Amino acid sequence: MPSLFQRAAAAVRPLDSAAVAEATAHQDRLTKPRRALGRLEEVGVQLAGIAGACPPPVPRPGAVVVFAADHGVVAEGVTPWPQEVTAQMVANFASGGAAINVLARQAGATVTVVDVGVATPLPAGCAVLSRVVRRGTANLALEPAMAVDECRAALDVGAELAAAAVAGGARALVTGEMGIGNTTASAAVIAALTGRSAADVTGRGAGVDDVGLARKVAVIDGALALHAEAIAAGPLTALAAVGGLEVAALAGFVVGGAAAGVPVLVDGVIANAALLAAERLVPGVAARCLAGHRSTEPGAAAALAELAMRPLLDLGMRLGEGSGACLALPVVEAAARIMAEMATFDSAGVTEKEG
Amino acid sequence: MPSLFQRAAAAVRPLDSAAVAEATAHQDRLTKPRRALGRLEEVGVQLAGIAGACPPPVPRPGAVVVFAADHGVVAEGVTPWPQEVTAQMVANFASGGAAINVLARQAGATVTVVDVGVATPLPAGCAVLSRVVRRGTANLALEPAMAVDECRAALDVGAELAAAAVAGGARALVTGEMGIGNTTASAAVIAALTGRSAADVTGRGAGVDDVGLARKVAVIDGALALHAEAIAAGPLTALAAVGGLEVAALAGFVVGGAAAGVPVLVDGVIANAALLAAERLVPGVAARCLAGHRSTEPGAAAALAELAMRPLLDLGMRLGEGSGACLALPVVEAAARIMAEMATFDSAGVTEKEG
Repeated sequence: MPSLFQRAAAAVRPLDSAAVAEATAHQDRLTKPRRALGRLEEVGVQLAGIAGACPPPVPRPGAVVVFAADHGVVAEGVTPWPQEVTAQMVANFASGGAAINVLARQAGATVTVVDVGVATPLPAGCAVLSRVVRRGTANLALEPAMAVDECRAALDVGAELAAAAVAGGARALVTGEMGIGNTTASAAVIAALTGRSAADVTGRGAGVDDVGLARKVAVIDGALALHAEAIAAGPLTALAAVGGLEVAALAGFVVGGAAAGVPVLVDGVIANAALLAAERLVPGVAARCLAGHRSTEPGAAAALAELAMRPLLDLGMRLGEGSGACLALPVVEAAARIMAEMATFDSAGVTEKEG
Repeated sequence: MPSLFQRAAAAVRPLDSAAVAEATAHQDRLTKPRRALGRLEEVGVQLAGIAGACPPPVPRPGAVVVFAADHGVVAEGVTPWPQEVTAQMVANFASGGAAINVLARQAGATVTVVDVGVATPLPAGCAVLSRVVRRGTANLALEPAMAVDECRAALDVGAELAAAAVAGGARALVTGEMGIGNTTASAAVIAALTGRSAADVTGRGAGVDDVGLARKVAVIDGALALHAEAIAAGPLTALAAVGGLEVAALAGFVVGGAAAGVPVLVDGVIANAALLAAERLVPGVAARCLAGHRSTEPGAAAALAELAMRPLLDLGMRLGEGSGACLALPVVEAAARIMAEMATFDSAGVTEKEG
C-alpha cells in the first residue's frame, strides 16, 4: 500500500493553466495602471493557478504546523544553545508564548506543534502532538542522521499533518520548525542537493561566533564527503544522511499541502531546505509554494535561487519557527482579495490611459 | 490665532527616550536569539518611543485618509491619463472599489476620501469630504502651483483630518492620495528640497513613455529654475510653488498624526515628498513615521535617503493611493504585539545560550 507521502506525491498537479491565463487578463481590467500592484499581482495569478479558479478563494484561515526535533550533530559544537532548549521552546509554543504564537494569532492562523523527535522529555501535559520517529537524529558527522525508513516515516508525518490541517478548514499552510542544530542539517541538505560548498551555504544560525562558524563549515564539509554515496543516490537518501527529522517532516508537509490544493508559505532556511528536497522528490510542488521571508542565512538564498523563488518579505528576521512566513500571510490574502473585490475600469466607469 | 497646522506643529515632541530604552532592553528578554526579529524589533522600539510606553499600545485600528486634487501641470503633457480620472477614481474610492479600499478592509482600517481640489465635478451623492482649497493647482511650469495662503489652507486640512481620525479612535494613520499629475509635482518638491536634479528624481508615474518621461524631466527642470527664489526662501514657499494641494494636505496630515502621538505610515513618492516637506517645516515628525513600501519611483528613494528611512515592504508596487502603506499595517501591528504578548526567557523557563 502506498504511504501517505506517496499518495500525496501522486496527487500533486501542475498549476491550472486556464485559471492562470484568466487571472493574468483579469489583473489588467482592474482600476489601476497595468502591473501597478507588482508582486501582489503575481501572487494573485499564482493563487488562481493553485486553486484552479479565478478569482482564487481567499487563503484564510492559515494553519502553522511547527515540527520539532533534535539533532545528534550538536555533539560537534555547532551551536551555543544547549539541546534542552528544543524541548523548552516546544513547551513555550504549546503555551502560546513564542513569536510564532503571537504572529499566528494576529493573522487568524492556528498553531499545531508536532514532536517528530525531541531528545529531552517535554513537560507533562504539554499540548503537543506526538509523532516521534526517533528521539533525535544520529550525529551526521559520524553516520547517517537517520535510516531511510525513518526519513520516510517523517515524510509521512508531514503529509498527514498537512492533510489534517486542510480537512480542519485551513486554506493556507505555513511551515514552522524548532530544533537546536537544525541550521547545520539544513545547510548540509542544501549543499548536498545543489552541489554548493559548505562555506557557500552555512551561516550563523541562532548566533554562533566566528570559531563556531568555522567548525560548522568543517563539520558539513566532512559530512558531505562521508555521505557522498548516499547524496549521489538521490534526494531521499541524501535527506536521510544529512537532514533532520523536522526537515523531512516539513518536506512531507509541503507535498501534502500541494496535493491538497492550498498555497504553502515557506519560512526560513530550514523550510527552504525542506522545500528543495520536496521539489527534488516531487517536481512541481514548489510552484504551489510561496517564500514568505528572506532569511539572512546564506543557505536560504542558495535554495531559493535553485528554485527560482523570491521571498515576499525582507525584514532582517532570522528566527525561524515559521515567523517570517506567518507575517507574509496578509500579503497573500491581499493578493486574493484584490482579484475578488476590486472594481474594473468598466464597472467603475474609469477612463483608461491614452496610447 | 495659530492655525490648526501651527498648533499641531507646536505639539510634536521628540520620541520618549525612557520608553525607547526600556523597549530596547525588553526585546533582549523575549524568547528568541538577540535581534532575531530584525526590523520588527526596531519598529517595536520606535512605537514605544512614539507612544511613550513599553510595551507600546497595538496601533489598531488604522485610518487611511485619501487626499485628492488635480494639477495644472497636466497641460504640459506629463501623463497619458486624462484629468477626469482623478474624479472618477475618487468616486471609485467612495464606492469601495479601489485597491486601497480592499487593502484597508482587510487590515481593519477605515478609508476617508477628502477632496482638497479636484478639478472636474464629482458624481452627485459621492461619499467624499469636501475641503476644496481651489479646484486644482495652477500650472507650475508657468506660475506658482498655489499661493502661500492656499498652501497653508491645505496644510490645515491635513492637520484637521489627522486630529479627527485620532479623535474617532484611529491608533495609526495611513497616508493616501489621488491626483493625475501628482508624481510630477512630487518629484519637483523632492528636487526642490534636496537640491537634486529633475533627472535624478523623476520616474514614469502611472505609465508615461520615454518621450513623456523626457518631457516630464524638462518641465520639472524649468519649474525649478522659474521658482528658484521661492524654493530658496524655505519649505513653505517651495511647497506652494511646485507642490500640490494633496501634497500639502498630506504634509499637514503627517504633522497632525505626529502631534497626536500615533504612528503615521507613509506610502509612495507623493507621501514621501509630503513627509520631506513636513520634516523641513517641523523637524522631528519623520521620527514618528514609518515608510510602508519602497516605491519604484526614483524620487521616493531620494526623499527616504534624505530622511534616513527604509521602507518596510518592497513588493514592486507603484500604485499610490496609500496601498503600500496599508499593506504594511499588519507588520507594524505585529511589532507591537510581539512586545506585549511574547514570553521572556524567565517567564517561559527557557535557557539562554552559552557565552
